[in-house]
Amino acid sequence: MNANTPTVTPKVTEGALPASRKIYKAGKLHPDIRVPMREIAVHPTAGEPPVTVYDSSGPYTDPDVKTDIAAGLPRLRAAWIEARGDVERYDGRPVDASDNGFASGDQLTPEFPLRHRPWRAEAGKAVTQLAYARAGIVTPEMEFIAIRENLGRDALKSKLERDGESWGAAIPDHVTPEFVRDEVAQGRATIPANINHPEAEPMIIGRNFLVKINANIGNSAVTSSMAEEVDKMVWAIRWGGDTVMDLSTGRNIHNIREWIIRNSPVPIGTVPIYQALEKVNGIAEDLSWDVFRDTLIEQAEQGVDYFTIHAGVRLHYVPLTAERTTGIVSRGGSIMAKWCLHHHRESFLYEHFEEICDICRAYDVSFSLGDGLRPGSIADANDAAQFAELETLGELTQIAWAKDCQVMIEGPGHVPMHKIKRNMDKQLESCGEAPFYTLGPLTTDIAPGYDHITSGIGAAMIGWFGTAMLCYVTPKEHLGLPDRDDVKTGVITYKIAAHAADLAKGHPAAQARDDALSRARFEFRWEDQFNLSLDPETARDFHDKTLPKQAHKVAHFCSMCGPKFCSMRISHDIRSEFQKEGMAEMARKYQEGGDLYMPVDEVGDSPA
Amino acid sequence: MNANTPTVTPKVTEGALPASRKIYKAGKLHPDIRVPMREIAVHPTAGEPPVTVYDSSGPYTDPDVKTDIAAGLPRLRAAWIEARGDVERYDGRPVDASDNGFASGDQLTPEFPLRHRPWRAEAGKAVTQLAYARAGIVTPEMEFIAIRENLGRDALKSKLERDGESWGAAIPDHVTPEFVRDEVAQGRATIPANINHPEAEPMIIGRNFLVKINANIGNSAVTSSMAEEVDKMVWAIRWGGDTVMDLSTGRNIHNIREWIIRNSPVPIGTVPIYQALEKVNGIAEDLSWDVFRDTLIEQAEQGVDYFTIHAGVRLHYVPLTAERTTGIVSRGGSIMAKWCLHHHRESFLYEHFEEICDICRAYDVSFSLGDGLRPGSIADANDAAQFAELETLGELTQIAWAKDCQVMIEGPGHVPMHKIKRNMDKQLESCGEAPFYTLGPLTTDIAPGYDHITSGIGAAMIGWFGTAMLCYVTPKEHLGLPDRDDVKTGVITYKIAAHAADLAKGHPAAQARDDALSRARFEFRWEDQFNLSLDPETARDFHDKTLPKQAHKVAHFCSMCGPKFCSMRISHDIRSEFQKEGMAEMARKYQEGGDLYMPVDEVGDSPA
Repeated sequence: MNANTPTVTPKVTEGALPASRKIYKAGKLHPDIRVPMREIAVHPTAGEPPVTVYDSSGPYTDPDVKTDIAAGLPRLRAAWIEARGDVERYDGRPVDASDNGFASGDQLTPEFPLRHRPWRAEAGKAVTQLAYARAGIVTPEMEFIAIRENLGRDALKSKLERDGESWGAAIPDHVTPEFVRDEVAQGRATIPANINHPEAEPMIIGRNFLVKINANIGNSAVTSSMAEEVDKMVWAIRWGGDTVMDLSTGRNIHNIREWIIRNSPVPIGTVPIYQALEKVNGIAEDLSWDVFRDTLIEQAEQGVDYFTIHAGVRLHYVPLTAERTTGIVSRGGSIMAKWCLHHHRESFLYEHFEEICDICRAYDVSFSLGDGLRPGSIADANDAAQFAELETLGELTQIAWAKDCQVMIEGPGHVPMHKIKRNMDKQLESCGEAPFYTLGPLTTDIAPGYDHITSGIGAAMIGWFGTAMLCYVTPKEHLGLPDRDDVKTGVITYKIAAHAADLAKGHPAAQARDDALSRARFEFRWEDQFNLSLDPETARDFHDKTLPKQAHKVAHFCSMCGPKFCSMRISHDIRSEFQKEGMAEMARKYQEGGDLYMPVDEVGDSPA
Repeated sequence: MNANTPTVTPKVTEGALPASRKIYKAGKLHPDIRVPMREIAVHPTAGEPPVTVYDSSGPYTDPDVKTDIAAGLPRLRAAWIEARGDVERYDGRPVDASDNGFASGDQLTPEFPLRHRPWRAEAGKAVTQLAYARAGIVTPEMEFIAIRENLGRDALKSKLERDGESWGAAIPDHVTPEFVRDEVAQGRATIPANINHPEAEPMIIGRNFLVKINANIGNSAVTSSMAEEVDKMVWAIRWGGDTVMDLSTGRNIHNIREWIIRNSPVPIGTVPIYQALEKVNGIAEDLSWDVFRDTLIEQAEQGVDYFTIHAGVRLHYVPLTAERTTGIVSRGGSIMAKWCLHHHRESFLYEHFEEICDICRAYDVSFSLGDGLRPGSIADANDAAQFAELETLGELTQIAWAKDCQVMIEGPGHVPMHKIKRNMDKQLESCGEAPFYTLGPLTTDIAPGYDHITSGIGAAMIGWFGTAMLCYVTPKEHLGLPDRDDVKTGVITYKIAAHAADLAKGHPAAQARDDALSRARFEFRWEDQFNLSLDPETARDFHDKTLPKQAHKVAHFCSMCGPKFCSMRISHDIRSEFQKEGMAEMARKYQEGGDLYMPVDEVGDSPA
């Protein structure tokens, strides 16, 4: 089976979400920055301001912006990068046939129509957000993030009490640009922001900020095409993906990635070893530092914002996996284990780690130190192999930080609930509070087809405990490649997990949306309930399935209970009476006025 | 809209699940009992015994049993009940037109074709499992449950280490009939087993047993029919529902319930106040103790196994809800609140609670003390109204226990993660360790359409902390009445939550299924992976969507990574080499033999 050759520019889903408009807030330190947010209008009867929510969807949801997939997004960070005066343009590495897995003719995905000459740091310069933060510089990226994260907190400060158990996280009442700078300087937060991906809107990953989610896309040797993957990327961020990893394997990796990055307003992560392996025809033992370094530079020049590097899979850890129930389940981890065993040598990723840092430092590619030995089953959770690798990731974190490189640490995997917290505690201990980025974890192995749910449980919990970004798992996990519907289900499930975590951590603004939606529910503002939800289309569709008529959108009941049994309606009556007159008066009124409810036969088109 | 009139006997889904056969284990104390289990075969290459799992699906999944919906299930407990010599048959209460909401003609659901004269306790006798347990009697029900719960533990005892954090639960290595008796005698577990529902296969609800799940069904005034509800009941238990609540409202409540109970092998719960309200034309303030008592007897004679009774909604608690974001969201709770306020009197359920106990004692109807003041939003979680009611439920538990009645306690609702454990702790404290039975809880309000997931997170956590039964929430929650697909999604999601909880509590046999499935996954036994999963049909369907060919069911890769990148394949090679020859030898062999993987172009119909 071959990848399909796209003959036309990919089509993506555009337009605002229901009742939503894009607003932009300007910076103060950097007045030219425009931070996008989504404002959801509520019905005038609510007597409430619109609800403003974090918006990762980029220009695609702004009807005032005309996007063009063949041209890519506006390069909003370009001026900021140039203004720092520490980068140079250069020709960049020529694209080689091996970069696209030797695809040719009809099988070759077309090149992206434009080519931007890449930037890199001037000799000796570090162009990472960590370097700037340590130098005391509040970059435009940092101010952008402060405004973005701070969403609505001003308006809410007086109303909301702080509530929650943060397990040692220190979420401020108000996010300032200086707070962002300090968190980055301490290594507690990461801003994935390759200088060659100026199209991206800055975002931050750290446990004192909103919990983020990542969506994986990417074609495989067996199925899917570039057009599908670009569409999936735009679709994933429409529903709330904060970063996207392009995990393409097979052919056309270079060209597909270029289309994705040029059109992505969110950071893009990759696992460079996948492409490196294609360059050596899939033979793990033929991998070498030279091929890998070349791949890193290729991807850094394209603008990849973070690299998963499995440098913690050391030769002497491999035997620790031999008796496992499911061995090594990380693709990168198993490739490196095979290489190490074949050559009976220490991993070239581990040995050349400082040189990898030098590359990342020159482009500001963040590290996502891969957990190549993560458990792939409940039986293998929290074992010696997993925790040995985690300690090595801690050691590598220190090396990367010494080179001014930004770091996050990847985590499992499959972990039963009672072993989840140990993962977070051990990661904080071993990795100096670098942000944790976990895949789930799945809390049981017995539900293929529902692993968004088995893992959503673990993700919510580990997010609460302090994980900064949750990598989604779709219903197709273990079974197939996610399609568009799976991507959406995975994203929404993980938005739930991340939000549940924010609530439990006591994020001062998180509950505002829950409260607004619950008030809408209580007041039978059905349209508001749909619009304020994570997936207005599905909420509306489910309601329509039993009560399709427009009149039911204003009905003071729903199909579950019907009008006679509606508890909300009854308790709403109770409340208004209390508020108006006190209980004694109310009892008298009830006695005089009879019942408030319609006979069931009248419930058709015109409910009261 | 009216309920549809069924013209034919309902059709239900029958037949074994894939690769599964029904086996029966006999008792020792009571040799005539036959405890059903499901045995899932694995491929001969696994070299493993079949996996035996708990089976709530009843005779419908046994191809050797011919079921007949119009006749009802065999009355397996009838002989046990008669043998105790403490019951009498009598004519029972005549069915009144109000029992079916005055439906007539075409609108009347037909009566169930057979009528069994009801049993009740002889005067002065208590026929509850609690009374027997206290008298030191190990009933056939108790031995049945011991065998059922003990599932596979003998075979596994030597292999599995106890692992988990049980938060004070005391799950034994091996469940004996005496252990069951003792747990029931202490009130820590409940066996819902109305003497007039002898069709039910005994099951137990308690925190030292497997975590159970309940599925709600029932028509409403607005939609659905008897045939649909019977089908949903059979469908819900096919996928793992341990009990079913019939929450029908509107007309035909009596006749629909009869069809359901006569065909249900699992305990049936109801909320009697719903039917009582229909009898007074939906006017809450017209409710009276007489109407309610009459409804309890009607339902007890039919065989309802547990009653939700909202006797904790006391008059002076109602003002505590007035300032809530979402008031009272329990239907029963709001009806009682309205009654109390209207009459400015204490609840008749509270005042007549001992008389309710006398009825339950005469039929062995278990109490499910309803949380009428549960929070309906994150904002209202763990508030004064909720906890005041919980204390009253503790007081009522003592009264019920004094009358030899079995009790469980209902719990929320909407609760953010950091407030969940407090619910469990407070329930244990206030209610003398009576089993807790919670609805979710939902961990955020912002995802209508996905509330099986928002609540599955909370359900898994509270199940881990000690909740004995989890009431499912479907994707339609807050939006509409669940259809067949929603019922399945709800059940599977809650089986995940319950199983994740069993694992985390350290249930000694729970991990056996995870391990068997993970070994199948690691060994590319795709068919076994599907068959061992909670939903074999969906798992297979998802796999087929990308790799439909039969050959792919034996492929040593999947569509996610393709053959070159399959980590499982690589690590399987690593492991077998290790096991055979040790690492040094292995490195040498790899070097001689080249690569193990096929070129990607050869991956079509005939993978190696």
